[in-house]
Amino acid sequence: MQREPGNVRRGRRPAGEDTRAAILDAARTEFSAKGYDASSLRAIARLAEVDPALVHHYFEGKSHLFAETMSLPVRPDELIGTVLDGPREQVGERLARAFFLLWDAPESRERFVAILRSAVSHEDAARMLREFMAREVFGRIAVQLEVPDPGMRAGLAAAQMVGLAMMRYVIGFEPLVRASADEIVALVAPTLQRYLADPRQGRLVGGSTSGYISSHDE
Amino acid sequence: MQREPGNVRRGRRPAGEDTRAAILDAARTEFSAKGYDASSLRAIARLAEVDPALVHHYFEGKSHLFAETMSLPVRPDELIGTVLDGPREQVGERLARAFFLLWDAPESRERFVAILRSAVSHEDAARMLREFMAREVFGRIAVQLEVPDPGMRAGLAAAQMVGLAMMRYVIGFEPLVRASADEIVALVAPTLQRYLADPRQGRLVGGSTSGYISSHDE
Repeated sequence: MQREPGNVRRGRRPAGEDTRAAILDAARTEFSAKGYDASSLRAIARLAEVDPALVHHYFEGKSHLFAETMSLPVRPDELIGTVLDGPREQVGERLARAFFLLWDAPESRERFVAILRSAVSHEDAARMLREFMAREVFGRIAVQLEVPDPGMRAGLAAAQMVGLAMMRYVIGFEPLVRASADEIVALVAPTLQRYLADPRQGRLVGGSTSGYISSHDE
Repeated sequence: MQREPGNVRRGRRPAGEDTRAAILDAARTEFSAKGYDASSLRAIARLAEVDPALVHHYFEGKSHLFAETMSLPVRPDELIGTVLDGPREQVGERLARAFFLLWDAPESRERFVAILRSAVSHEDAARMLREFMAREVFGRIAVQLEVPDPGMRAGLAAAQMVGLAMMRYVIGFEPLVRASADEIVALVAPTLQRYLADPRQGRLVGGSTSGYISSHDE
């Protein structure tokens, strides 16, 4: 109730930093309480006591607002655009490259590690992370590739990337710390490619997984 | 100084539960302070104020003692034995299966998740975990398979398994939570197989990684 009069008093600056900060505060509260999926821009506007149009003025949708509340160094839609922009048979390589480009920059690595740490300790943070990864990052990539079982494929790709981040930046497993990003990208790209886009996989869950394995053992 | 006289006083029970507990206490202190690699059974015996022979009486070597201090539900040498016992071309499948067999049992899953949580929050715990994984688990498997670059291969396989544990048990990514262990094993086995034992990989680090990728794209 105090914020709105404050903004009104500034007259020509209703769209000032105070309003943006109030929206971010409200978004943090909303995402933390309800997770990513159940949060709405309308509810966040109500909590911040601003007109919903102002939320759209400052943020280009829910994923952008979420990225800002988490101080993510990249907009998810732009990251996904980079990964999907190019030959389909190199999507695994582009995905790995895009992540290591972010992670190897110290400031953004610190943000990602902090988010992982938080998810490991707090169920609220874990829910936000898993719903965001499913909806806006790995899940979105799999959906855009129009493969069967996008959820499972997204989970496998996410597991590979989260595991690499854990081993290289958190646990500090020597060979993965010493290797260059290019070396790791080259080694994991075929894995991500298979998980996300391999047409031989067919239906993953409930399908003939043993047949799938043997086709790879040939 | 108090433990030894206590044991002596018991006369016929120098090898009692007190001694075993004292060794475990000392081992926890030693592993936490120096990490896995730099800890020695001799130093642990000194810290526990017992004869080194008693350490060997209760524990079959450093990896067994470490597993006991961490309340691991399995002895590392037995786990590795299970993974290596069988056709080389199915080592990835056996590795995945052995881990999910452990992790899907609630008590042992809780231990593993606690160890992961601890490693994420404390550098001492991270060091113990990475050195133990390198020396006694993933690194040992890669060394036994006599492949080039065992360290990097161990790191990639560990990253895949740690990432799966994170996504299925900690972050709770839906499709990986709902899937059966068998389904996940079938999907990740080819990845682990390639990381650990694929003869086409040749030298991994510093070698022609682009050549390696293209050989997989054929």
